[in-house]
Amino acid sequence: MNAMPEQKRAPPELLSALRNEFGDRFSTSEAVCLHHGSDESAYPARPPEAVVFPATSHEVAAIVKLCARSATPVIAYGVGTSIEGHLLAVHGGVCIDMSRMDGVLALNTEDLTATVQAGVTREQLNTHLHGTGFFFSVDPGANATIGGMAATCASGTNTVRYGTMRDNVLSLTVVTAEGRIVRTASRAKKSSAGYALTQLYVGSEGTLGIITEVVVKLHPQPEAIAAAVVNFPDVRSAAQAVIQAIQMGVPLARSELLDALAIRAINAHSRTNLRALPTLFLEFCGSSAQIEEQSQIVREIVAQCGGGDFQWATRPEERSRLWTPRHHAYFACLQLKPGSRSITTDACVPISRLADCITETLEDIEATQLPTPLFGHVGDGNFHCLLLVDPADPREVEAAEAFSRRLVRRALAHEGTCSGEHGVGLHKMAYLNEEYGADAVDIMRRIKVALDPMNILNPGKVVDVSRPSCHEVA
Amino acid sequence: MNAMPEQKRAPPELLSALRNEFGDRFSTSEAVCLHHGSDESAYPARPPEAVVFPATSHEVAAIVKLCARSATPVIAYGVGTSIEGHLLAVHGGVCIDMSRMDGVLALNTEDLTATVQAGVTREQLNTHLHGTGFFFSVDPGANATIGGMAATCASGTNTVRYGTMRDNVLSLTVVTAEGRIVRTASRAKKSSAGYALTQLYVGSEGTLGIITEVVVKLHPQPEAIAAAVVNFPDVRSAAQAVIQAIQMGVPLARSELLDALAIRAINAHSRTNLRALPTLFLEFCGSSAQIEEQSQIVREIVAQCGGGDFQWATRPEERSRLWTPRHHAYFACLQLKPGSRSITTDACVPISRLADCITETLEDIEATQLPTPLFGHVGDGNFHCLLLVDPADPREVEAAEAFSRRLVRRALAHEGTCSGEHGVGLHKMAYLNEEYGADAVDIMRRIKVALDPMNILNPGKVVDVSRPSCHEVA
Repeated sequence: MNAMPEQKRAPPELLSALRNEFGDRFSTSEAVCLHHGSDESAYPARPPEAVVFPATSHEVAAIVKLCARSATPVIAYGVGTSIEGHLLAVHGGVCIDMSRMDGVLALNTEDLTATVQAGVTREQLNTHLHGTGFFFSVDPGANATIGGMAATCASGTNTVRYGTMRDNVLSLTVVTAEGRIVRTASRAKKSSAGYALTQLYVGSEGTLGIITEVVVKLHPQPEAIAAAVVNFPDVRSAAQAVIQAIQMGVPLARSELLDALAIRAINAHSRTNLRALPTLFLEFCGSSAQIEEQSQIVREIVAQCGGGDFQWATRPEERSRLWTPRHHAYFACLQLKPGSRSITTDACVPISRLADCITETLEDIEATQLPTPLFGHVGDGNFHCLLLVDPADPREVEAAEAFSRRLVRRALAHEGTCSGEHGVGLHKMAYLNEEYGADAVDIMRRIKVALDPMNILNPGKVVDVSRPSCHEVA
Repeated sequence: MNAMPEQKRAPPELLSALRNEFGDRFSTSEAVCLHHGSDESAYPARPPEAVVFPATSHEVAAIVKLCARSATPVIAYGVGTSIEGHLLAVHGGVCIDMSRMDGVLALNTEDLTATVQAGVTREQLNTHLHGTGFFFSVDPGANATIGGMAATCASGTNTVRYGTMRDNVLSLTVVTAEGRIVRTASRAKKSSAGYALTQLYVGSEGTLGIITEVVVKLHPQPEAIAAAVVNFPDVRSAAQAVIQAIQMGVPLARSELLDALAIRAINAHSRTNLRALPTLFLEFCGSSAQIEEQSQIVREIVAQCGGGDFQWATRPEERSRLWTPRHHAYFACLQLKPGSRSITTDACVPISRLADCITETLEDIEATQLPTPLFGHVGDGNFHCLLLVDPADPREVEAAEAFSRRLVRRALAHEGTCSGEHGVGLHKMAYLNEEYGADAVDIMRRIKVALDPMNILNPGKVVDVSRPSCHEVA
């Protein structure tokens, strides 16, 4: 039961059954499979054997039931923006593309909830919410699907104020490894009835079930929003300013740090003319009086930390001119080295350790030959280094991986985590033992085996079930 | 592996091993066992066979290892204030009393975290935090232990603003069924590294592991706090006022509703002289300007809903005179009928359904012969009815249980949950199937079997593992 499935081909009768069922919503074309077997990581593609485009939870359940008969792997696919190798069909199998599951099923603004199919993107949901006075807060760099964001426990620039996906998902509809459809919770704001299935599936990366519908929390649009850009002489002092603001309890709406290289990348990509210095992008929200109050406190902190003047953006189009380039920072940085892929780190540490962790990391960047912009959600203690490598050059890839290993260990030494928001995928499996210890990872493995005994749900990701679980009493 | 352990006695060699190991921190005295085999529910006591008083996680692990040898049940005990039968030793076994694990291990106010042993009570932690400018927010009625609150996913009057235990626990130390010690997460503010063990153990009621240490989030003390009491002509209009405030995004710090009977109980118990009318206890916090702003909005809503004037309490001792009686409401209500026990309901529904759910429930109370005060955390959609019964009168107990069943079904029909904050224990096991469906409960059962294959961790609670799990492919 614990053994990895053999890397066998999906049986022809499965493929013809899926073709019969889904018609032109089924494909084995090489181009389609190749597209669905890669993500934004530096890994080479590992295409699935077929791609299906279901429209409902029941269709997803039907696919899983068909695949389960031959223990054929199933991998859910949103828009392909994950960066840890989550989507690669390392054991073959069938990709379930959620793009046709793009319906907003219910808006309950009086309860501050929306129910969406998993293929709805975050921008699509916010467009749908336009004019309601509410918004969906979680905003990773990419315009990812809500289902994919739930599966990886995504967060973003708003998380410092509004939380991660785990904080913003109220309930899920999930297809189990047997093709059953379960709902993990009611729409009540809180519950202590039974085990926290919602939170367990959030961040499980398609390895425990396939998320098909999501009830998310909405937040009231603040009365006013004001964004500010401020430069610093060095990265450490910029981080220090945010740390002090957080520790004083200032409810920052956003607090993004970008180093000079990241700013140069943004300027080149988005035709902005930001000063190429370590920079904070800050946002305040609330009533005008609250914004004035908060920003006054932060201005004083910034001045003490050696930062410059605030350049304000208050009108929506001004703020958009600021934040759109920030959301495109990942893609902008890739352009620093044409043809490159990024090996992206994702350390997150307690905020009291952040300045030291960043400082030590900057020294490590100095010693690295690769262009490595640094930016992140410093209010959460989370920052990314983008190690830009030529994926065809094994020395560059290995240098970047060695840096990444050092950074993970540094983050763990600072009581942090190897992944703040990108998940484990293929890339971070080896780090879980270091972060949690073998006994905690064994608990995760047992959960995987219990919920997916044939190991057909995105196999080879998050936890390795090829090693036997240790059920014996110590 | 799935079968319930036989209801055998703990073997004499186990009891003598525990006595050897723990000396006078081990007891089989009838009085001690009786005390540890009951809680605040109406169930008759089911004493364990022995009680041990460990001081460290390693001692808890040692107890579990010893018990595991003979598949003897282990039940963790905080201060005994749960009300769903969580603590009853229905299959015998050994009670682990956490009262000596009362150390605050670390205060990291710069990270807004504290690390405590599981036996620290919420009041003890807040006393420890006195003068730091920070507080721990979750406040169920009783002065429960942090470990017990984590185990039941407790919440309280502050939850409308600061969240439940699931929102306020960052990491746990847990002893597994094999007596291994695992840490579920780092101290980073967020993580997407692997499955959400922390959230899974929170609310698992001692059935998946024994919580021995907890890293909780702290919150900065607000600059100012103002509490207000306001009367309404009926319960529905009081609920409506809170619902509208929540829907407008007013960040209420507390919003408690009490019906006239609950107010009378409080007056009698705490010597207050509140008007015996449906009443809201409200609290606002922030800067003085923010409080003025928020309370102005709420005053207008209250007036539209037919509510009276605000009676303010702003000084700490005035607020304490208000909130201490509210926290004692449960015990005050028991005094309405001397010798009674309460069968306490815990429905929680989306806020748009709350007024209807409460109105229908009040009609049901009218038809019930039992004294039944109603109060609750209406900002979360959560309210309690205390059905005061003579536990020796089976007709009263059955009438209360029938009411409770009707209320659960009403809450589910309103898209809510059978338990907002009290947990499942013995009392609500039968409702999980109705709330989640059999397939979702099967997922919970598989998790239980995977993590506790011998069923020694608080057996007979939350999920029934005597029924076989369905691993077969559908």
